[in-house]
Amino acid sequence: MRLGDLGEFELIARIERAARRAGSPRFVVLGIGDDAAILRLRSGEDLVVTTDSLVEDVHFRWRSQSARTIGRRALVANLSDLAAMGARPLGFTLALVTPASLEVATLDGLVAGLLREARRHGCPLVGGNVSRGTECSLTITALGAVRRGRALTRRGVRRGDRLFVTGTVGGPALELARAERGLGQIRRVPQPRLEAGRALTRVKQIGGCIDISDGLDADLDHLLETTRLAAEVAAERIPLPRGFRAACRKLGLEPERLARTGGEDYELLFSVRPAGPGAGALARRLGVAVTEIGRLRAAAAVQESRPGPAPHGGFRHF
Amino acid sequence: MRLGDLGEFELIARIERAARRAGSPRFVVLGIGDDAAILRLRSGEDLVVTTDSLVEDVHFRWRSQSARTIGRRALVANLSDLAAMGARPLGFTLALVTPASLEVATLDGLVAGLLREARRHGCPLVGGNVSRGTECSLTITALGAVRRGRALTRRGVRRGDRLFVTGTVGGPALELARAERGLGQIRRVPQPRLEAGRALTRVKQIGGCIDISDGLDADLDHLLETTRLAAEVAAERIPLPRGFRAACRKLGLEPERLARTGGEDYELLFSVRPAGPGAGALARRLGVAVTEIGRLRAAAAVQESRPGPAPHGGFRHF
Repeated sequence: MRLGDLGEFELIARIERAARRAGSPRFVVLGIGDDAAILRLRSGEDLVVTTDSLVEDVHFRWRSQSARTIGRRALVANLSDLAAMGARPLGFTLALVTPASLEVATLDGLVAGLLREARRHGCPLVGGNVSRGTECSLTITALGAVRRGRALTRRGVRRGDRLFVTGTVGGPALELARAERGLGQIRRVPQPRLEAGRALTRVKQIGGCIDISDGLDADLDHLLETTRLAAEVAAERIPLPRGFRAACRKLGLEPERLARTGGEDYELLFSVRPAGPGAGALARRLGVAVTEIGRLRAAAAVQESRPGPAPHGGFRHF
Repeated sequence: MRLGDLGEFELIARIERAARRAGSPRFVVLGIGDDAAILRLRSGEDLVVTTDSLVEDVHFRWRSQSARTIGRRALVANLSDLAAMGARPLGFTLALVTPASLEVATLDGLVAGLLREARRHGCPLVGGNVSRGTECSLTITALGAVRRGRALTRRGVRRGDRLFVTGTVGGPALELARAERGLGQIRRVPQPRLEAGRALTRVKQIGGCIDISDGLDADLDHLLETTRLAAEVAAERIPLPRGFRAACRKLGLEPERLARTGGEDYELLFSVRPAGPGAGALARRLGVAVTEIGRLRAAAAVQESRPGPAPHGGFRHF
């Protein structure tokens, strides 16, 4: 059965029922189904809001992953932005544009994937919109709350800061490269570093923070783009997943380049003042592996040493 | 020049510059340009969030209105949902999907239109996303704040409530009909009833409220869909714009039908308890014309009297 057979009102009702089954925390005063949703922040909290789209044949291909995985990734991309601000999730809205020819089973898969991550991270679906279109796209707006004045931002970076990254980078890019060569579907969905982000808001010597969605190099550029700083990155320190080099070489890929330009890692890339905690202490506070990969210097002082010719890695839309 | 010539980063920078020029109120702690925006609610306020998409050739055609008008309408559609909740606007995010072939001048028009309404209603652009796609769509998420427990909702309707509508209905549908016949572009942009919605939150005898976006009949159905109520509407009382009947007949359109099924009026449709204020008193408090058009009864008690065969008017996506 296709969406065109279902009709708009039944389509909306179907998504609403799934959202209600998934439940919602007490701070949701009014969930899906009215003109707007109502959410309650705690006193002394600021609202954090971020928006991201996944577009068919740009961000995903139906053949390289299940609808469920696409749904999961769509929400995770937004939750990762909340993590990078140190926010706790409150809820999200979904604007779905889709052709009427989409299979209802595919829609159900997308929604199930979204709601799986929603439950896992306490971030309920609170509203949305469906519209006909020639290609499928999911636009998600995620809402979060952060203690007043304590949000992590890119602006926090300073000269001399030490640069850290959580977890490992490159794994998702390798999985994508394999899928694009027909060597299996994308199954692993990186998890947003929500707990780590919130723990970072309590680190007194914290600098700036960003999540790695476009690729380590590109997001490092984003982190520094309004500054006169540059990063001195020790390439050999970039934390790679186990077996990553060998797997890359088997595919004819250069491991370091893939790790720095791949993207969708959803690790946190952040800076800490020189007097702040080191990687070991940070790892304990954040509950995740943390690696020191470099330092921020005045832009003129840094000799850039990047693999490949592109100044940014990362996907460009235009 | 086209977006493809501009490049993604310059495109984003262009929108960010325009948003910064438009300025932002003090409750915007961190505006466009980071992983997420930060907004500050007043204490004792709840957050209100709503999402809506405008898709090329579904919600708009480039030839029937200017890019600026499309941008204005896109934001107004969302602001109207905030109005229907009685919320004051805080800000909005924009997820733009567009082909690389879009003219930069068209983009500038869209953004100028969005920002015009944003300034007018104190609802700044605080974040967003741009992505490549085969057709153009604008997905807006609007954020607002409302005094705790005072939001207007659809759930507030009760049997016996009197039914009111602000302003007039049908004007935008008539203008669209003219545009579709090649008789001029759409120029008028209905204004969201934000002040009226906020005033309604202070009416003690208020029932339920919805904005008219899909058409009077369809939104009346939405207002009542979770109830066992039906509306007894006095067709002759539905407030039409001056000269509406004559203009409809000239185009061979049935005025009452067009007024009830057209949509995009962005008037408020709300109910008030029998002991509450009448149309005159409401008009004074809301600062806008208010007409009593009917009453809510138990569903079985109402003989439906609607023009035309469709149970809903309003556009259906699937």
